[in-house]
Amino acid sequence: MPAPLDRVLAGLPGIRQDAEDLYKDLHAHPELGNDEHRTAARAAELLRGYGYEVTESIGTTGVVGVLANGDGPTVLLRADMDALPVREDTGLPYASTATVTGDDGDEQPVMHACGHDVHVTCMLGFARLMASAGDAWSGTLVTLFQPSEEKADGADGMVEDGLTDRVPRPDVALAQHVLPYPAGYVGVRRGSFLSAADSLRVTLYGRGAHGSMPQAGVDPVVLAAMCVVRLQTIVSRELAATTPAVLTVGSIRAGASPNVIPDTAVMELNVRTYDDATRRQVLDAVRRCVDAEAKASNAPRQPLVERLNAFPPTVNDDEVADRLDRAFRDHFGDDAHTIGLQTASEDFSRIPEAFGAPFAYWGIGGIDPDTYRAAAERGTVAQDIPVNHSPAFAPVIQPTLDTGITALAVAALAWLGADA
Amino acid sequence: MPAPLDRVLAGLPGIRQDAEDLYKDLHAHPELGNDEHRTAARAAELLRGYGYEVTESIGTTGVVGVLANGDGPTVLLRADMDALPVREDTGLPYASTATVTGDDGDEQPVMHACGHDVHVTCMLGFARLMASAGDAWSGTLVTLFQPSEEKADGADGMVEDGLTDRVPRPDVALAQHVLPYPAGYVGVRRGSFLSAADSLRVTLYGRGAHGSMPQAGVDPVVLAAMCVVRLQTIVSRELAATTPAVLTVGSIRAGASPNVIPDTAVMELNVRTYDDATRRQVLDAVRRCVDAEAKASNAPRQPLVERLNAFPPTVNDDEVADRLDRAFRDHFGDDAHTIGLQTASEDFSRIPEAFGAPFAYWGIGGIDPDTYRAAAERGTVAQDIPVNHSPAFAPVIQPTLDTGITALAVAALAWLGADA
Amino acid sequence: MPAPLDRVLAGLPGIRQDAEDLYKDLHAHPELGNDEHRTAARAAELLRGYGYEVTESIGTTGVVGVLANGDGPTVLLRADMDALPVREDTGLPYASTATVTGDDGDEQPVMHACGHDVHVTCMLGFARLMASAGDAWSGTLVTLFQPSEEKADGADGMVEDGLTDRVPRPDVALAQHVLPYPAGYVGVRRGSFLSAADSLRVTLYGRGAHGSMPQAGVDPVVLAAMCVVRLQTIVSRELAATTPAVLTVGSIRAGASPNVIPDTAVMELNVRTYDDATRRQVLDAVRRCVDAEAKASNAPRQPLVERLNAFPPTVNDDEVADRLDRAFRDHFGDDAHTIGLQTASEDFSRIPEAFGAPFAYWGIGGIDPDTYRAAAERGTVAQDIPVNHSPAFAPVIQPTLDTGITALAVAALAWLGADA
Amino acid sequence: MPAPLDRVLAGLPGIRQDAEDLYKDLHAHPELGNDEHRTAARAAELLRGYGYEVTESIGTTGVVGVLANGDGPTVLLRADMDALPVREDTGLPYASTATVTGDDGDEQPVMHACGHDVHVTCMLGFARLMASAGDAWSGTLVTLFQPSEEKADGADGMVEDGLTDRVPRPDVALAQHVLPYPAGYVGVRRGSFLSAADSLRVTLYGRGAHGSMPQAGVDPVVLAAMCVVRLQTIVSRELAATTPAVLTVGSIRAGASPNVIPDTAVMELNVRTYDDATRRQVLDAVRRCVDAEAKASNAPRQPLVERLNAFPPTVNDDEVADRLDRAFRDHFGDDAHTIGLQTASEDFSRIPEAFGAPFAYWGIGGIDPDTYRAAAERGTVAQDIPVNHSPAFAPVIQPTLDTGITALAVAALAWLGADA
Repeated sequence: MPAPLDRVLAGLPGIRQDAEDLYKDLHAHPELGNDEHRTAARAAELLRGYGYEVTESIGTTGVVGVLANGDGPTVLLRADMDALPVREDTGLPYASTATVTGDDGDEQPVMHACGHDVHVTCMLGFARLMASAGDAWSGTLVTLFQPSEEKADGADGMVEDGLTDRVPRPDVALAQHVLPYPAGYVGVRRGSFLSAADSLRVTLYGRGAHGSMPQAGVDPVVLAAMCVVRLQTIVSRELAATTPAVLTVGSIRAGASPNVIPDTAVMELNVRTYDDATRRQVLDAVRRCVDAEAKASNAPRQPLVERLNAFPPTVNDDEVADRLDRAFRDHFGDDAHTIGLQTASEDFSRIPEAFGAPFAYWGIGGIDPDTYRAAAERGTVAQDIPVNHSPAFAPVIQPTLDTGITALAVAALAWLGADA
Repeated sequence: MPAPLDRVLAGLPGIRQDAEDLYKDLHAHPELGNDEHRTAARAAELLRGYGYEVTESIGTTGVVGVLANGDGPTVLLRADMDALPVREDTGLPYASTATVTGDDGDEQPVMHACGHDVHVTCMLGFARLMASAGDAWSGTLVTLFQPSEEKADGADGMVEDGLTDRVPRPDVALAQHVLPYPAGYVGVRRGSFLSAADSLRVTLYGRGAHGSMPQAGVDPVVLAAMCVVRLQTIVSRELAATTPAVLTVGSIRAGASPNVIPDTAVMELNVRTYDDATRRQVLDAVRRCVDAEAKASNAPRQPLVERLNAFPPTVNDDEVADRLDRAFRDHFGDDAHTIGLQTASEDFSRIPEAFGAPFAYWGIGGIDPDTYRAAAERGTVAQDIPVNHSPAFAPVIQPTLDTGITALAVAALAWLGADA
Repeated sequence: MPAPLDRVLAGLPGIRQDAEDLYKDLHAHPELGNDEHRTAARAAELLRGYGYEVTESIGTTGVVGVLANGDGPTVLLRADMDALPVREDTGLPYASTATVTGDDGDEQPVMHACGHDVHVTCMLGFARLMASAGDAWSGTLVTLFQPSEEKADGADGMVEDGLTDRVPRPDVALAQHVLPYPAGYVGVRRGSFLSAADSLRVTLYGRGAHGSMPQAGVDPVVLAAMCVVRLQTIVSRELAATTPAVLTVGSIRAGASPNVIPDTAVMELNVRTYDDATRRQVLDAVRRCVDAEAKASNAPRQPLVERLNAFPPTVNDDEVADRLDRAFRDHFGDDAHTIGLQTASEDFSRIPEAFGAPFAYWGIGGIDPDTYRAAAERGTVAQDIPVNHSPAFAPVIQPTLDTGITALAVAALAWLGADA
Repeated sequence: MPAPLDRVLAGLPGIRQDAEDLYKDLHAHPELGNDEHRTAARAAELLRGYGYEVTESIGTTGVVGVLANGDGPTVLLRADMDALPVREDTGLPYASTATVTGDDGDEQPVMHACGHDVHVTCMLGFARLMASAGDAWSGTLVTLFQPSEEKADGADGMVEDGLTDRVPRPDVALAQHVLPYPAGYVGVRRGSFLSAADSLRVTLYGRGAHGSMPQAGVDPVVLAAMCVVRLQTIVSRELAATTPAVLTVGSIRAGASPNVIPDTAVMELNVRTYDDATRRQVLDAVRRCVDAEAKASNAPRQPLVERLNAFPPTVNDDEVADRLDRAFRDHFGDDAHTIGLQTASEDFSRIPEAFGAPFAYWGIGGIDPDTYRAAAERGTVAQDIPVNHSPAFAPVIQPTLDTGITALAVAALAWLGADA
């Protein structure tokens, strides 16, 4: 009798066309975070059709499909559903032309520029294969479709809406992301995988004055400049060379006229770290630096530091990662890799943490392998391969979808397979 | 026979009510720079009525009235006519409620927040007195009503439109400005009076990147911060302690997201100096500093430095200032002062420079003397007395208008009086 | 009968040779501050010879000679006696080759590089002329020879040693200084003349670590750099353009190896201001800036700020200055000037302040007029004319001494002359 | 028949006392770099006694002992011999009291503060064991005793003196270092192990002036501060978060007086990187930054950048490291570890690079295990355990020496053992 994985994957050729059609449809109909009504409805409808018990509208648009299939562990696999306010520039026949009206009344373009349509498609294809091969595995399968990953509030939203009481507690939680590697590539790693990302808005208070009379004011532009300069020293002097971290001041705004000293300056900054101790250390140092620079400027008030959003670090459980690594290497051979540390961020970990379950996360490639290889040979990968969030990010449909569906199956069966 | 000045000023009581009515009317009908059609028409009409030969529409709305009255020197006196895009907040019964539609389609408020209505009123009252007392003086009187002082292009506009060919060449040029001193005050000084003011926009070029990958970009926020810091050293290290100068970066703008390194940063800055050598030195140093900091950042392009506007320094001719000082002290006694160096700027000097004529500029007070004295006793002048350009700037009508009319007469007769 | 000044100055030709000989002798025998034993003894001996009542050893080596000559005001004139630890490089036949053994056991050269030998010589010449022409004036003359001006402790030393109880209280106090202007030049001014000068040592505390492990320490080199940068903003942003001030960090020292983060950094800085309010403001701002930057660096201790020395500002009394100005212009004609604000410093003002007497200070030139004029015509005065404290500072003997003696007489007689 | 390793190590008990005695003797007689005459003579004498063919005085004091023992690979193992100018503060009965007279005539203390005495002792013990068990292995053994590792010129010195022509070309080169881990610990890693370290002296040229006249000079203190600030951005902005690097300005010196702007400032800095591309990038960026900041300051000359010393990165060959790792884990069990990236530096790699041979480097512990464990439990390892170069660095004799001798044998036999 064939191995469980072979029995599950035997169904793949039969669902491939449906998967590709679904992908094109999702890609052409992207929805912003917490607004994924069409996508969620589609997922719920298909899951029900496959025989899953479905719960909808967890958090905002979250969907969970559960397939109980005898004794054995419970495995949760998660796909995120939201798209981005990016104007698609891929030239694909199924490119998005969608727009939504933003809070400010402006039309915003919407695009699946991060590949969550790949994630949803693969999860549904995988769910279908597993439902069709119930004799190949034993245990409980939980497929979770999460809203609003990009805004870092979708996982928390599901948890706050009672997720842990509404679905079985998993023994392990898993997730994958399409990344700018060659399609066919699968990569996992132990420990730190994705960075924590914290975005802060810092409002620096000066005191306005005519530009010719600095002595009558407190110049918030000079204060902001000193803060930007000072913040560089956190990475350069307060962290070990081997502790990776990034602190970027992405935005700075002050004043409207060359000749008027404004009252305030506003900086928005982003901090990336890979463990909680470093994260805490850097955030504390930001606070310390801006407070002290404000004092040095004799500012009338201490800076206001507001949290804009906060992604946790994604730190794979070593044992889960090792089990995935072995399973991937067994199945994918040379296409299975130890992936490098990524500077991107995710909120997936909030879900297993809510359950107290170990978890791991892996990456699959989405770039045409020939294109990638040519760029690699030219040494121009960084310049030539569009990355996630780019208007030109365009995963090739195959072997991306096959790889994503297969990787989910390989991963799930590492726990649920009869020989697991 | 009374002295010439007494003969001229004998008419003042008879025109006082007209002057006050005119002032309220002008104050209630402010017009932005190069749009002073109503004001200019009013001035031209009145001048003609007084017997002046009038030329209109020099530059945009410039008006000159000439009264040739026998042998003697030619004296030019200038009043500026334009108002500001400020929403009046004085509570005066004759406060402006005027608005205009800006280039961007928005309604802009308009207010005589700099007191040019005082200047126009006084000049017309003075012109009337001089015309009525032709036997008290001898020579040629040139009264000039200039548009668009606030934008620094009104004087140049008149010169470019042939001013020097259209009116007699003056032997001396004079101008006054109402300032936040007690009404009744008159003050002149030798040499530097008002600063030059140069506004620049500096565009700093970096290279955008994801906020987590600074190595892939060139961070223009850090570059801008280093420029702001570096620019401080021009005043602190490159100029003598006794060389007054101000360099203010009034505006800084870069990026729109905490997590994206932007492509560019834009600074707008204003430089105030009191002589041409220092002005040139500081502007050259700005260029040197931003160029070098861009090199230090490995920027892909040198910064773009654009001139937004440029006011010349106003440097009184010593002999003209001395003659005015003596005349003011003779007439005004203890109300005549040596005024301090001002950090404001003017384009008046462009006019005498076009003629090659010496010039001087003086200030008159516009604040209620009791209010001013009380604030001075409390030590709260800086906080309590609204200054030019403030929405609350409200000169008291008297003795401001009397003082302004009288100061013009005292000044003109220092050259034109029979005993001059 | 000739005017009092003419009668006093009639004796000048007869003492000129003695004055020149004395000058050469003093120049060849310079003594450091509070060690002016030979100079003081010489002054005391000569004064006694002229008939003055002499008090010696006030403070350390201070000498006062009093000549009571009938009714009238009391005028104090002061000369400072100390030299500098500079190795003379003038090539003069009477150049100093003197050395002393310093506290550290090293031989130090000594030179009258600031021209105090001119001051002593002129004061003694003037004292002799006044004593010889007692009928030309009436009142009390107090000639004061002060130690240790360069160290800023000589005037205070005399005051602390009871000066005000030991000599008559003056109605006015006067002093002069030879400066790099053409010999023959005399210049005074109202108000601010010399700056206050405060020197501080700031010790910044970090925490040492191996250079490869900045995370284990607190880098005092980075802290010092941030302080130097931040201190620039005091002059550039906290003072009006028209408030002259200088803040120079003249010395910075930290670490001994490229590869070790040191424990501390030491900065020595000098602040020059022209009035007490600005002085206090700047010194407070220095403290605020270094404290805040230490906080920003997470330093283990607040910086130690030590006062190294403090010169008061020298602010001439306006009435005294005006009287001197008139007297100088009457006598010196075109050689009498309104001198510019000087960035040097003095402790002379401590003496009149101890008495509560008004005072003024003036400058005389010491540079060969032809040399000066040639440099001025080349525009190379700053490069070619050695200034005070330079090893090449070499006043020409004449007309420097004649001018200095005469200026003292002109000044004293403005109060003591029968027609004063 | 016992395995080769067992046969070699069977001799260890018999040589242990000699090794310990030798260690105490070497520790008590430390010699600075290129002056290791006594140490080298001792090594050469012992090697000859064991039957090695010995070459002396390669470079300065370098010694190589070769033992040809039949067919098989050639393995080079290296020990460094030099001590440091540190005053020992261990309280050990065999502590060093040695001093030498430095270039400046001062007495310098000397101490084996880096544990090279451990290296020499272990290498000689190992050489003896190998010579005594020739039937346990086959091939050629090259034991190399290098001078002057601390100054980074000992390996180059041997290469420049013809090393590659004077000893057999190795198939693999190996070295070990005692580190602040528990004695008994052995750790190796693939790839980057020790950083490159480059020390630079940067002389910044300003133009001196009186402290009160910054406009007459170019302030090198401000320039130095801007450089220190700017250099922080190399690590914070120009390198990926995952590219470890350190840039420390360990020393900064300018000026001698608070009141004089000096002519120059001197910074000494140290750069640590882990690969040649990053090293080149950082060193280029240092040059670019200081050049540009000098331009921003309008400096009269570009900075002088001098190389003080340069250690290459130590990057283990992956295959060599893997072979060592397997061998260590087989023999040492739980005491064998994957060691972390170290921020220290070495010049060992120059030797295998001269031969074109692959190499690896490993660490052994030297701290008393109980002391280490207690500190680890308190979380005070960083504070309580003296590290290399500390005056208190005192490896415990055992099991340090046994571990070091054994590790060399395990490593060598991984290539030379009959079953290798």
